[in-house]
Amino acid sequence: MKIEEYLKAVEEKIKFWIDELGDEYISEIFSSIKSGKMVRSQLMFLISKDEKMVALSAVIELIHLASLLHDDVIDDAEQRRGVPSVHATEGSKVSIMLGDILYSKAFVELGSYSETIIKDIANGVVKLSMGEIADVNLSKEFNSDENLYLNMIYNKTASLIEVACRVSAIHSGKDGVKFGEYGKWLGMAFQIIDDILDIVSTSEELGKPAMNDFIEGKTTLPYIYLYKEAPHLREKVKSFHLKTLSEDEQEWIKEQFEESGSLEKAMDLAIEFSEKAIKNLEKENGELLDIVQNLIERKK
Amino acid sequence: MKIEEYLKAVEEKIKFWIDELGDEYISEIFSSIKSGKMVRSQLMFLISKDEKMVALSAVIELIHLASLLHDDVIDDAEQRRGVPSVHATEGSKVSIMLGDILYSKAFVELGSYSETIIKDIANGVVKLSMGEIADVNLSKEFNSDENLYLNMIYNKTASLIEVACRVSAIHSGKDGVKFGEYGKWLGMAFQIIDDILDIVSTSEELGKPAMNDFIEGKTTLPYIYLYKEAPHLREKVKSFHLKTLSEDEQEWIKEQFEESGSLEKAMDLAIEFSEKAIKNLEKENGELLDIVQNLIERKK
Repeated sequence: MKIEEYLKAVEEKIKFWIDELGDEYISEIFSSIKSGKMVRSQLMFLISKDEKMVALSAVIELIHLASLLHDDVIDDAEQRRGVPSVHATEGSKVSIMLGDILYSKAFVELGSYSETIIKDIANGVVKLSMGEIADVNLSKEFNSDENLYLNMIYNKTASLIEVACRVSAIHSGKDGVKFGEYGKWLGMAFQIIDDILDIVSTSEELGKPAMNDFIEGKTTLPYIYLYKEAPHLREKVKSFHLKTLSEDEQEWIKEQFEESGSLEKAMDLAIEFSEKAIKNLEKENGELLDIVQNLIERKK
Repeated sequence: MKIEEYLKAVEEKIKFWIDELGDEYISEIFSSIKSGKMVRSQLMFLISKDEKMVALSAVIELIHLASLLHDDVIDDAEQRRGVPSVHATEGSKVSIMLGDILYSKAFVELGSYSETIIKDIANGVVKLSMGEIADVNLSKEFNSDENLYLNMIYNKTASLIEVACRVSAIHSGKDGVKFGEYGKWLGMAFQIIDDILDIVSTSEELGKPAMNDFIEGKTTLPYIYLYKEAPHLREKVKSFHLKTLSEDEQEWIKEQFEESGSLEKAMDLAIEFSEKAIKNLEKENGELLDIVQNLIERKK
Protein backbone atom coordinates (compact mmCIF):
# COMPACT_ATOMS: atom_id res chain seq x y z
CA MET A 1 0.00 0.00 0.00
CA LYS A 2 1.29 3.43 -0.93
CA ILE A 3 0.98 6.30 1.48
CA GLU A 4 -1.52 8.10 -0.80
CA GLU A 5 -3.78 5.05 -0.75
CA TYR A 6 -3.42 4.80 3.00
CA LEU A 7 -4.42 8.43 3.57
CA LYS A 8 -7.36 7.98 1.19
CA ALA A 9 -8.46 4.94 3.20
CA VAL A 10 -8.23 6.95 6.43
CA GLU A 11 -10.40 9.69 4.92
CA GLU A 12 -12.96 7.13 3.76
CA LYS A 13 -13.06 5.51 7.18
CA ILE A 14 -13.76 8.87 8.80
CA LYS A 15 -16.50 9.67 6.28
CA PHE A 16 -18.05 6.25 6.92
CA TRP A 17 -18.11 6.86 10.68
CA ILE A 18 -19.70 10.27 10.27
CA ASP A 19 -22.37 9.00 7.86
CA GLU A 20 -23.03 6.17 10.30
CA LEU A 21 -24.38 8.76 12.75
CA GLY A 22 -27.37 9.03 10.43
CA ASP A 23 -27.74 12.81 10.56
CA GLU A 24 -27.79 14.52 7.16
CA TYR A 25 -26.98 17.95 8.53
CA ILE A 26 -23.90 16.65 10.33
CA SER A 27 -22.72 14.73 7.26
CA GLU A 28 -23.19 17.87 5.19
CA ILE A 29 -21.24 20.25 7.38
CA PHE A 30 -18.56 17.63 7.92
CA SER A 31 -18.12 17.28 4.16
CA SER A 32 -17.47 21.05 3.94
CA ILE A 33 -14.31 20.63 6.04
CA LYS A 34 -11.24 20.52 3.85
CA SER A 35 -8.70 17.75 4.46
CA GLY A 36 -5.28 18.76 5.65
CA LYS A 37 -1.99 17.03 5.03
CA MET A 38 -2.86 14.38 7.63
CA VAL A 39 0.65 14.55 9.07
CA ARG A 40 -0.27 12.33 12.02
CA SER A 41 -1.58 9.59 9.75
CA GLN A 42 1.48 9.84 7.55
CA LEU A 43 3.70 9.33 10.56
CA MET A 44 1.59 6.44 11.80
CA PHE A 45 1.87 4.68 8.46
CA LEU A 46 5.59 5.31 8.11
CA ILE A 47 6.22 3.97 11.61
CA SER A 48 3.96 0.92 11.45
CA LYS A 49 4.21 0.11 7.74
CA ASP A 50 0.91 -1.59 8.41
CA GLU A 51 -2.30 -0.90 6.56
CA LYS A 52 -4.25 -2.32 9.50
CA MET A 53 -3.48 1.01 11.17
CA VAL A 54 -6.13 2.83 9.07
CA ALA A 55 -8.82 2.88 11.79
CA LEU A 56 -6.41 4.04 14.48
CA SER A 57 -5.21 6.83 12.19
CA ALA A 58 -8.84 7.79 11.59
CA VAL A 59 -9.34 8.03 15.37
CA ILE A 60 -6.34 10.37 15.68
CA GLU A 61 -7.45 12.50 12.71
CA LEU A 62 -10.98 12.80 14.17
CA ILE A 63 -9.49 13.99 17.44
CA HIS A 64 -7.26 16.45 15.60
CA LEU A 65 -10.26 17.77 13.61
CA ALA A 66 -12.31 18.10 16.79
CA SER A 67 -9.53 20.15 18.38
CA LEU A 68 -9.42 22.42 15.31
CA LEU A 69 -13.20 23.00 15.49
CA HIS A 70 -12.83 24.16 19.10
CA ASP A 71 -9.67 26.08 18.25
CA ASP A 72 -11.52 28.06 15.59
CA VAL A 73 -14.14 29.13 18.13
CA ILE A 74 -11.43 30.14 20.58
CA ASP A 75 -9.44 32.08 17.97
CA ASP A 76 -12.62 33.40 16.31
CA ALA A 77 -11.12 32.13 13.04
CA GLU A 78 -12.98 32.85 9.83
CA GLN A 79 -10.91 30.51 7.73
CA ARG A 80 -9.42 27.05 8.06
CA ARG A 81 -7.22 25.53 5.36
CA GLY A 82 -8.19 28.31 2.98
CA VAL A 83 -11.96 27.78 3.18
CA PRO A 84 -14.52 29.34 5.56
CA SER A 85 -14.46 27.61 8.96
CA VAL A 86 -17.51 25.79 10.40
CA HIS A 87 -17.40 28.47 13.08
CA ALA A 88 -17.83 31.12 10.34
CA THR A 89 -20.55 29.37 8.31
CA GLU A 90 -22.57 27.58 11.02
CA GLY A 91 -21.72 29.58 14.12
CA SER A 92 -19.78 28.83 17.28
CA LYS A 93 -22.51 26.61 18.79
CA VAL A 94 -22.36 24.13 15.93
CA SER A 95 -18.56 24.26 15.85
CA ILE A 96 -18.38 23.40 19.56
CA MET A 97 -20.93 20.59 19.31
CA LEU A 98 -19.55 19.11 16.09
CA GLY A 99 -16.18 19.06 17.85
CA ASP A 100 -17.78 17.15 20.74
CA ILE A 101 -19.34 14.69 18.30
CA LEU A 102 -16.00 14.03 16.60
CA TYR A 103 -14.23 13.59 19.95
CA SER A 104 -16.85 11.18 21.27
CA LYS A 105 -17.16 9.24 18.02
CA ALA A 106 -13.38 8.83 18.11
CA PHE A 107 -13.69 7.41 21.63
CA VAL A 108 -16.46 5.03 20.54
CA GLU A 109 -14.12 3.58 17.90
CA LEU A 110 -11.18 3.66 20.30
CA GLY A 111 -13.18 1.32 22.55
CA SER A 112 -12.02 -1.63 20.40
CA TYR A 113 -8.35 -1.13 21.35
CA SER A 114 -6.28 -2.11 24.36
CA GLU A 115 -6.47 -0.23 27.65
CA THR A 116 -2.93 1.07 27.10
CA ILE A 117 -3.81 2.61 23.76
CA ILE A 118 -7.15 4.02 24.94
CA LYS A 119 -5.60 5.68 27.97
CA ASP A 120 -2.60 6.99 26.02
CA ILE A 121 -4.77 8.67 23.41
CA ALA A 122 -7.31 10.03 25.91
CA ASN A 123 -4.42 11.44 27.94
CA GLY A 124 -3.16 13.10 24.77
CA VAL A 125 -6.51 14.89 24.48
CA VAL A 126 -6.30 15.98 28.13
CA LYS A 127 -2.88 17.49 27.45
CA LEU A 128 -4.01 19.10 24.21
CA SER A 129 -6.85 20.88 26.03
CA MET A 130 -4.61 21.85 28.95
CA GLY A 131 -2.21 23.33 26.40
CA GLU A 132 -5.03 25.37 24.88
CA ILE A 133 -5.99 26.80 28.28
CA ALA A 134 -2.34 27.61 28.99
CA ASP A 135 -2.05 29.28 25.57
CA VAL A 136 -5.11 31.45 26.31
CA ASN A 137 -3.83 32.36 29.78
CA LEU A 138 -0.23 33.02 28.71
CA SER A 139 -1.53 35.36 26.01
CA LYS A 140 -3.17 37.74 28.46
CA GLU A 141 0.13 39.31 29.44
CA PHE A 142 3.63 39.41 27.99
CA ASN A 143 5.15 36.06 28.97
CA SER A 144 8.93 36.02 29.34
CA ASP A 145 9.17 32.52 30.85
CA GLU A 146 10.67 30.10 28.33
CA ASN A 147 9.72 27.03 30.38
CA LEU A 148 6.06 27.98 30.53
CA TYR A 149 6.15 28.44 26.78
CA LEU A 150 7.87 25.11 26.08
CA ASN A 151 5.50 23.27 28.39
CA MET A 152 2.53 24.88 26.69
CA ILE A 153 3.62 23.92 23.16
CA TYR A 154 4.43 20.41 24.35
CA ASN A 155 0.86 19.99 25.57
CA LYS A 156 -0.83 21.88 22.76
CA THR A 157 1.09 20.62 19.75
CA ALA A 158 3.58 17.89 20.52
CA SER A 159 1.55 15.60 22.78
CA LEU A 160 -0.92 14.33 20.17
CA ILE A 161 1.88 13.78 17.63
CA GLU A 162 3.85 11.92 20.31
CA VAL A 163 0.82 9.76 21.12
CA ALA A 164 0.06 9.08 17.45
CA CYS A 165 3.62 7.89 16.88
CA ARG A 166 3.74 5.85 20.09
CA VAL A 167 0.42 4.01 19.64
CA SER A 168 1.16 3.15 16.02
CA ALA A 169 4.46 1.67 17.16
CA ILE A 170 2.87 -0.26 20.03
CA HIS A 171 -0.06 -1.46 17.93
CA SER A 172 2.30 -2.82 15.28
CA GLY A 173 4.66 -4.44 17.77
CA LYS A 174 7.40 -1.83 17.53
CA ASP A 175 9.21 0.25 20.16
CA GLY A 176 6.68 2.68 21.67
CA VAL A 177 9.25 4.66 23.65
CA LYS A 178 11.53 5.24 20.66
CA PHE A 179 8.82 6.40 18.29
CA GLY A 180 7.01 8.34 21.00
CA GLU A 181 10.21 10.35 21.54
CA TYR A 182 10.46 10.89 17.80
CA GLY A 183 6.91 12.31 17.70
CA LYS A 184 7.42 14.45 20.76
CA TRP A 185 10.55 16.23 19.56
CA LEU A 186 9.28 16.49 16.01
CA GLY A 187 6.16 18.22 17.39
CA MET A 188 8.23 20.60 19.50
CA ALA A 189 10.50 21.52 16.57
CA PHE A 190 7.44 21.91 14.33
CA GLN A 191 5.77 24.41 16.65
CA ILE A 192 8.90 26.51 17.14
CA ILE A 193 9.45 26.71 13.39
CA ASP A 194 5.78 27.61 12.93
CA ASP A 195 6.28 30.46 15.39
CA ILE A 196 9.42 31.62 13.55
CA LEU A 197 7.61 31.56 10.20
CA ASP A 198 4.92 33.84 11.61
CA ILE A 199 7.70 36.43 11.91
CA VAL A 200 9.89 35.88 8.86
CA SER A 201 7.29 35.00 6.21
CA THR A 202 5.04 37.33 4.28
CA SER A 203 1.25 37.14 4.63
CA GLU A 204 1.19 35.80 1.09
CA GLU A 205 3.52 32.94 1.92
CA LEU A 206 1.58 32.10 5.10
CA GLY A 207 -1.90 32.35 3.61
CA LYS A 208 -2.83 34.34 6.74
CA PRO A 209 -1.68 37.66 8.22
CA ALA A 210 2.03 37.65 9.10
CA MET A 211 3.28 38.62 12.59
CA ASN A 212 -0.14 37.82 13.93
CA ASP A 213 0.91 35.78 16.97
CA PHE A 214 2.08 38.79 18.95
CA ILE A 215 -1.06 40.77 18.05
CA GLU A 216 -3.05 37.88 19.56
CA GLY A 217 -0.89 38.08 22.67
CA LYS A 218 1.22 34.99 21.94
CA THR A 219 4.74 35.70 23.15
CA THR A 220 6.46 33.00 21.12
CA LEU A 221 10.06 31.90 21.57
CA PRO A 222 11.72 34.61 19.42
CA TYR A 223 9.92 37.27 21.48
CA ILE A 224 10.99 35.61 24.73
CA TYR A 225 14.61 35.53 23.50
CA LEU A 226 14.45 39.15 22.30
CA TYR A 227 13.26 40.12 25.77
CA LYS A 228 16.13 38.18 27.33
CA GLU A 229 18.90 39.25 24.95
CA ALA A 230 18.09 42.95 24.72
CA PRO A 231 17.18 44.35 28.15
CA HIS A 232 17.25 47.93 26.85
CA LEU A 233 14.40 47.12 24.42
CA ARG A 234 12.13 45.43 26.96
CA GLU A 235 9.80 48.35 27.55
CA LYS A 236 9.33 49.04 23.87
CA VAL A 237 8.83 45.35 22.94
CA LYS A 238 6.29 44.92 25.74
CA SER A 239 4.42 48.02 24.59
CA PHE A 240 3.80 46.30 21.23
CA HIS A 241 2.16 43.29 22.89
CA LEU A 242 -1.48 42.66 21.88
CA LYS A 243 -1.36 45.62 19.45
CA THR A 244 -1.74 45.86 15.70
CA LEU A 245 1.61 47.20 14.53
CA SER A 246 2.27 49.72 11.76
CA GLU A 247 4.57 48.64 8.93
CA ASP A 248 7.37 50.73 10.40
CA GLU A 249 6.94 49.10 13.78
CA GLN A 250 6.93 45.66 12.19
CA GLU A 251 10.14 46.51 10.34
CA TRP A 252 11.73 47.81 13.51
CA ILE A 253 10.94 44.68 15.48
CA LYS A 254 12.17 42.43 12.66
CA GLU A 255 15.50 44.32 12.71
CA GLN A 256 15.77 43.80 16.45
CA PHE A 257 15.18 40.07 15.99
CA GLU A 258 18.08 39.98 13.54
CA GLU A 259 20.43 42.16 15.57
CA SER A 260 19.82 40.38 18.86
CA GLY A 261 20.15 36.95 17.29
CA SER A 262 16.84 35.85 18.84
CA LEU A 263 15.44 34.29 15.70
CA GLU A 264 18.64 32.33 15.23
CA LYS A 265 18.56 31.22 18.83
CA ALA A 266 14.99 29.98 18.41
CA MET A 267 15.99 28.16 15.25
CA ASP A 268 18.92 26.58 17.08
CA LEU A 269 16.53 25.14 19.63
CA ALA A 270 14.27 23.79 16.87
CA ILE A 271 17.32 22.12 15.31
CA GLU A 272 18.38 20.73 18.69
CA PHE A 273 14.88 19.25 19.14
CA SER A 274 14.85 17.79 15.65
CA GLU A 275 18.17 16.13 16.40
CA LYS A 276 16.63 14.62 19.51
CA ALA A 277 13.77 13.39 17.31
CA ILE A 278 16.03 11.41 15.00
CA LYS A 279 18.63 10.37 17.55
CA ASN A 280 17.34 6.83 17.96
CA LEU A 281 16.15 6.21 14.43
CA GLU A 282 17.82 3.69 12.18
CA LYS A 283 18.57 3.50 8.49
CA GLU A 284 15.30 1.75 7.75
CA ASN A 285 13.47 4.83 9.06
CA GLY A 286 14.72 6.99 6.19
CA GLU A 287 11.30 8.51 5.51
CA LEU A 288 10.98 9.66 9.11
CA LEU A 289 14.41 11.28 8.82
CA ASP A 290 13.26 13.03 5.64
CA ILE A 291 10.23 14.48 7.42
CA VAL A 292 12.49 16.09 10.00
CA GLN A 293 14.84 17.34 7.28
CA ASN A 294 11.95 18.89 5.33
CA LEU A 295 10.61 20.49 8.48
CA ILE A 296 13.88 22.27 9.13
CA GLU A 297 13.99 23.46 5.55
CA ARG A 298 10.32 24.33 5.16
CA LYS A 299 9.34 27.78 4.05
CA LYS A 300 5.69 27.77 5.17
CA MET B 1 -23.01 2.37 52.40
CA LYS B 2 -25.65 5.06 52.45
CA ILE B 3 -26.40 7.04 49.33
CA GLU B 4 -25.02 10.26 50.87
CA GLU B 5 -21.70 8.54 51.53
CA TYR B 6 -21.70 7.17 48.02
CA LEU B 7 -22.27 10.59 46.44
CA LYS B 8 -19.57 12.06 48.66
CA ALA B 9 -17.18 9.35 47.48
CA VAL B 10 -18.02 10.13 43.85
CA GLU B 11 -17.29 13.81 44.43
CA GLU B 12 -13.98 12.96 46.09
CA LYS B 13 -13.00 10.69 43.22
CA ILE B 14 -13.67 13.48 40.72
CA LYS B 15 -11.67 15.98 42.77
CA PHE B 16 -8.80 13.48 42.99
CA TRP B 17 -8.77 13.04 39.19
CA ILE B 18 -8.78 16.77 38.58
CA ASP B 19 -5.99 17.43 41.07
CA GLU B 20 -4.05 14.59 39.45
CA LEU B 21 -3.76 16.75 36.32
CA GLY B 22 -1.30 18.86 38.30
CA ASP B 23 -2.52 22.26 37.13
CA GLU B 24 -3.40 24.68 39.92
CA TYR B 25 -5.48 26.95 37.74
CA ILE B 26 -7.63 24.05 36.55
CA SER B 27 -8.09 22.72 40.09
CA GLU B 28 -9.08 26.18 41.22
CA ILE B 29 -11.73 26.87 38.58
CA PHE B 30 -13.02 23.33 38.93
CA SER B 31 -13.52 23.85 42.67
CA SER B 32 -15.68 26.89 41.90
CA ILE B 33 -18.24 24.65 40.19
CA LYS B 34 -21.12 23.85 42.52
CA SER B 35 -22.22 20.23 42.82
CA GLY B 36 -25.68 19.37 41.61
CA LYS B 37 -27.98 16.64 42.86
CA MET B 38 -25.93 14.01 41.02
CA VAL B 39 -29.08 12.32 39.80
CA ARG B 40 -27.17 9.97 37.50
CA SER B 41 -24.95 8.77 40.35
CA GLN B 42 -27.98 8.30 42.59
CA LEU B 43 -29.60 6.11 39.96
CA MET B 44 -26.40 4.15 39.42
CA PHE B 45 -26.13 3.41 43.12
CA LEU B 46 -29.79 2.48 43.51
CA ILE B 47 -29.57 0.13 40.54
CA SER B 48 -26.27 -1.54 41.36
CA LYS B 49 -26.39 -1.35 45.15
CA ASP B 50 -22.66 -1.64 44.78
CA GLU B 51 -20.13 0.79 46.20
CA LYS B 52 -17.62 -0.40 43.62
CA MET B 53 -19.56 1.73 41.19
CA VAL B 54 -18.05 4.98 42.54
CA ALA B 55 -15.47 5.41 39.76
CA LEU B 56 -17.98 4.69 37.00
CA SER B 57 -20.37 7.22 38.54
CA ALA B 58 -17.52 9.73 38.64
CA VAL B 59 -16.93 9.14 34.91
CA ILE B 60 -20.61 9.84 34.16
CA GLU B 61 -20.67 12.94 36.38
CA LEU B 62 -17.51 14.27 34.69
CA ILE B 63 -19.16 13.81 31.30
CA HIS B 64 -22.31 15.52 32.54
CA LEU B 65 -20.27 18.43 33.92
CA ALA B 66 -18.36 18.74 30.64
CA SER B 67 -21.63 18.93 28.74
CA LEU B 68 -22.87 21.69 31.08
CA LEU B 69 -19.68 23.71 30.53
CA HIS B 70 -20.27 23.60 26.77
CA ASP B 71 -24.00 24.17 27.25
CA ASP B 72 -23.31 27.37 29.17
CA VAL B 73 -21.22 28.71 26.29
CA ILE B 74 -23.96 27.80 23.82
CA ASP B 75 -26.72 29.35 25.93
CA ASP B 76 -24.50 32.28 26.98
CA ALA B 77 -25.51 31.42 30.55
CA GLU B 78 -24.32 33.71 33.33
CA GLN B 79 -25.35 31.36 36.11
CA ARG B 80 -25.24 27.66 36.82
CA ARG B 81 -26.76 26.15 39.96
CA GLY B 82 -27.19 29.61 41.42
CA VAL B 83 -23.53 30.65 41.14
CA PRO B 84 -21.71 32.43 38.28
CA SER B 85 -20.84 29.99 35.49
CA VAL B 86 -17.24 29.30 34.41
CA HIS B 87 -18.31 30.86 31.12
CA ALA B 88 -19.17 34.06 33.02
CA THR B 89 -16.10 34.22 35.28
CA GLU B 90 -13.36 32.78 33.03
CA GLY B 91 -14.78 33.34 29.56
CA SER B 92 -16.03 31.03 26.85
CA LYS B 93 -12.55 29.86 25.83
CA VAL B 94 -11.81 28.40 29.24
CA SER B 95 -15.31 26.94 29.52
CA ILE B 96 -14.89 25.13 26.20
CA MET B 97 -11.43 23.82 27.05
CA LEU B 98 -12.24 22.82 30.62
CA GLY B 99 -15.17 20.89 29.15
CA ASP B 100 -12.76 19.14 26.78
CA ILE B 101 -10.46 18.31 29.70
CA LEU B 102 -13.32 16.79 31.71
CA TYR B 103 -14.53 14.78 28.72
CA SER B 104 -11.09 13.43 27.93
CA LYS B 105 -10.17 12.74 31.57
CA ALA B 106 -13.44 10.78 31.81
CA PHE B 107 -12.34 8.74 28.79
CA VAL B 108 -8.91 8.13 30.32
CA GLU B 109 -10.58 6.60 33.38
CA LEU B 110 -13.14 4.79 31.24
CA GLY B 111 -10.22 2.99 29.58
CA SER B 112 -10.17 0.53 32.50
CA TYR B 113 -13.65 -0.83 31.69
CA SER B 114 -14.93 -3.36 29.17
CA GLU B 115 -15.34 -2.54 25.49
CA THR B 116 -19.14 -2.73 25.88
CA ILE B 117 -19.18 -0.12 28.63
CA ILE B 118 -16.67 2.17 26.91
CA LYS B 119 -18.59 2.17 23.64
CA ASP B 120 -21.96 2.56 25.34
CA ILE B 121 -20.85 5.63 27.29
CA ALA B 122 -18.96 7.20 24.36
CA ASN B 123 -22.05 6.68 22.20
CA GLY B 124 -24.08 8.44 24.87
CA VAL B 125 -21.82 11.47 24.47
CA VAL B 126 -22.23 11.34 20.68
CA LYS B 127 -26.02 11.41 21.13
CA LEU B 128 -25.86 14.15 23.74
CA SER B 129 -23.91 16.39 21.35
CA MET B 130 -26.17 15.52 18.41
CA GLY B 131 -29.13 16.47 20.60
CA GLU B 132 -27.52 19.83 21.34
CA ILE B 133 -27.02 20.57 17.64
CA ALA B 134 -30.64 19.55 16.95
CA ASP B 135 -31.81 21.80 19.80
CA VAL B 136 -29.89 24.76 18.33
CA ASN B 137 -31.20 24.09 14.82
CA LEU B 138 -34.83 23.44 15.87
CA SER B 139 -34.79 26.74 17.78
CA LYS B 140 -34.13 28.82 14.67
CA GLU B 141 -37.73 28.55 13.49
CA PHE B 142 -41.04 27.55 15.06
CA ASN B 143 -40.94 23.74 15.12
CA SER B 144 -44.32 22.03 14.99
CA ASP B 145 -42.99 18.50 14.51
CA GLU B 146 -43.50 16.43 17.65
CA ASN B 147 -41.23 13.62 16.47
CA LEU B 148 -38.30 15.95 15.86
CA TYR B 149 -38.80 17.31 19.35
CA LEU B 150 -39.00 13.90 21.01
CA ASN B 151 -35.96 12.66 19.14
CA MET B 152 -34.04 15.77 20.19
CA ILE B 153 -34.86 15.41 23.90
CA TYR B 154 -34.03 11.71 23.75
CA ASN B 155 -30.56 12.53 22.48
CA LYS B 156 -29.99 15.63 24.57
CA THR B 157 -31.38 14.54 27.93
CA ALA B 158 -32.45 10.91 28.07
CA SER B 159 -29.53 9.16 26.38
CA LEU B 160 -26.90 9.80 29.10
CA ILE B 161 -29.37 8.84 31.85
CA GLU B 162 -30.21 5.68 29.89
CA VAL B 163 -26.52 4.85 29.51
CA ALA B 164 -25.77 5.57 33.19
CA CYS B 165 -28.54 3.18 34.27
CA ARG B 166 -27.58 0.52 31.72
CA VAL B 167 -23.85 0.43 32.45
CA SER B 168 -24.38 0.34 36.21
CA ALA B 169 -26.69 -2.65 35.71
CA ILE B 170 -24.26 -4.42 33.37
CA HIS B 171 -21.24 -3.68 35.56
CA SER B 172 -22.98 -5.13 38.61
CA GLY B 173 -24.29 -8.19 36.80
CA LYS B 174 -27.88 -7.01 36.48
CA ASP B 175 -30.23 -6.67 33.50
CA GLY B 176 -28.85 -3.90 31.22
CA VAL B 177 -31.90 -3.78 28.96
CA LYS B 178 -34.40 -3.42 31.80
CA PHE B 179 -32.55 -0.65 33.62
CA GLY B 180 -31.56 1.05 30.38
CA GLU B 181 -35.27 1.33 29.50
CA TYR B 182 -35.94 2.71 32.96
CA GLY B 183 -33.34 5.44 32.49
CA LYS B 184 -34.49 6.27 28.98
CA TRP B 185 -38.15 6.83 29.84
CA LEU B 186 -37.32 8.53 33.12
CA GLY B 187 -35.14 10.96 31.14
CA MET B 188 -37.88 11.59 28.58
CA ALA B 189 -40.50 12.23 31.28
CA PHE B 190 -38.04 14.45 33.17
CA GLN B 191 -37.40 16.69 30.16
CA ILE B 192 -41.10 17.08 29.30
CA ILE B 193 -41.91 18.04 32.88
CA ASP B 194 -38.99 20.47 32.86
CA ASP B 195 -40.49 22.08 29.75
CA ILE B 196 -43.94 22.26 31.39
CA LEU B 197 -42.48 23.87 34.53
CA ASP B 198 -40.90 26.59 32.37
CA ILE B 199 -44.49 27.60 31.55
CA VAL B 200 -46.43 27.02 34.77
CA SER B 201 -43.87 28.06 37.39
CA THR B 202 -42.93 31.55 38.49
CA SER B 203 -39.41 32.88 37.98
CA GLU B 204 -39.01 32.69 41.74
CA GLU B 205 -39.86 29.00 41.86
CA LEU B 206 -37.55 28.24 38.93
CA GLY B 207 -34.62 30.34 40.08
CA LYS B 208 -34.40 31.61 36.48
CA PRO B 209 -36.73 33.58 34.19
CA ALA B 210 -40.05 31.79 33.58
CA MET B 211 -41.36 31.17 30.05
CA ASN B 212 -37.82 31.54 28.79
CA ASP B 213 -37.73 28.51 26.48
CA PHE B 214 -39.92 30.11 23.82
CA ILE B 215 -37.96 33.37 23.98
CA GLU B 216 -34.87 31.29 23.19
CA GLY B 217 -36.72 29.73 20.28
CA LYS B 218 -37.37 26.37 21.93
CA THR B 219 -40.79 25.18 20.79
CA THR B 220 -41.34 22.66 23.56
CA LEU B 221 -44.12 20.06 23.64
CA PRO B 222 -46.90 22.32 25.07
CA TYR B 223 -46.25 24.83 22.25
CA ILE B 224 -46.32 22.06 19.65
CA TYR B 225 -49.64 20.80 21.05
CA LEU B 226 -51.09 24.32 21.22
CA TYR B 227 -50.19 24.74 17.56
CA LYS B 228 -51.88 21.42 16.74
CA GLU B 229 -54.97 21.84 18.89
CA ALA B 230 -55.81 25.45 18.07
CA PRO B 231 -55.36 26.09 14.34
CA HIS B 232 -56.99 29.54 14.63
CA LEU B 233 -54.22 30.68 16.99
CA ARG B 234 -51.30 29.49 14.89
CA GLU B 235 -50.38 32.83 13.38
CA LYS B 236 -50.47 34.64 16.71
CA VAL B 237 -48.54 31.90 18.56
CA LYS B 238 -45.89 31.84 15.86
CA SER B 239 -45.57 35.63 16.03
CA PHE B 240 -44.49 35.29 19.68
CA HIS B 241 -41.65 32.90 18.82
CA LEU B 242 -38.15 34.16 19.75
CA LYS B 243 -39.65 37.32 21.29
CA THR B 244 -39.64 38.70 24.80
CA LEU B 245 -43.32 38.80 25.75
CA SER B 246 -45.15 41.45 27.76
CA GLU B 247 -46.96 40.32 30.91
CA ASP B 248 -50.28 40.55 29.08
CA GLU B 249 -48.99 38.41 26.24
CA GLN B 250 -47.64 35.85 28.73
CA GLU B 251 -51.00 35.74 30.46
CA TRP B 252 -52.81 35.36 27.15
CA ILE B 253 -50.64 32.43 26.06
CA LYS B 254 -51.02 30.72 29.45
CA GLU B 255 -54.81 30.96 29.08
CA GLN B 256 -54.60 29.38 25.65
CA PHE B 257 -52.52 26.53 27.08
CA GLU B 258 -55.29 25.89 29.62
CA GLU B 259 -58.19 26.23 27.20
CA SER B 260 -56.69 24.07 24.49
CA GLY B 261 -55.65 21.39 26.97
CA SER B 262 -52.08 21.40 25.57
CA LEU B 263 -50.38 21.48 28.94
CA GLU B 264 -52.49 18.56 30.11
CA LYS B 265 -51.73 16.66 26.94
CA ALA B 266 -48.00 17.20 27.48
CA MET B 267 -48.34 16.05 31.09
CA ASP B 268 -50.21 12.96 29.90
CA LEU B 269 -47.28 12.03 27.70
CA ALA B 270 -44.86 12.54 30.60
CA ILE B 271 -47.01 10.22 32.71
CA GLU B 272 -47.15 7.68 29.90
CA PHE B 273 -43.35 7.75 29.68
CA SER B 274 -42.95 7.43 33.44
CA GLU B 275 -45.21 4.38 33.34
CA LYS B 276 -42.98 2.90 30.67
CA ALA B 277 -40.03 3.62 32.96
CA ILE B 278 -41.38 1.58 35.86
CA LYS B 279 -43.14 -1.11 33.83
CA ASN B 280 -40.47 -3.75 34.31
CA LEU B 281 -39.35 -2.83 37.78
CA GLU B 282 -39.96 -5.12 40.73
CA LYS B 283 -40.80 -4.61 44.37
CA GLU B 284 -37.16 -4.58 45.37
CA ASN B 285 -36.68 -1.48 43.18
CA GLY B 286 -38.89 0.64 45.42
CA GLU B 287 -36.48 3.58 45.47
CA LEU B 288 -36.44 3.73 41.69
CA LEU B 289 -40.25 3.79 41.72
CA ASP B 290 -40.13 6.64 44.24
CA ILE B 291 -37.89 8.69 41.97
CA VAL B 292 -40.45 8.45 39.20
CA GLN B 293 -43.26 9.29 41.59
CA ASN B 294 -41.41 12.35 42.88
CA LEU B 295 -40.67 13.45 39.35
CA ILE B 296 -44.34 13.46 38.43
CA GLU B 297 -45.17 15.44 41.56
CA ARG B 298 -42.24 17.82 41.48
CA LYS B 299 -42.85 21.53 41.50
CA LYS B 300 -39.48 22.72 40.26
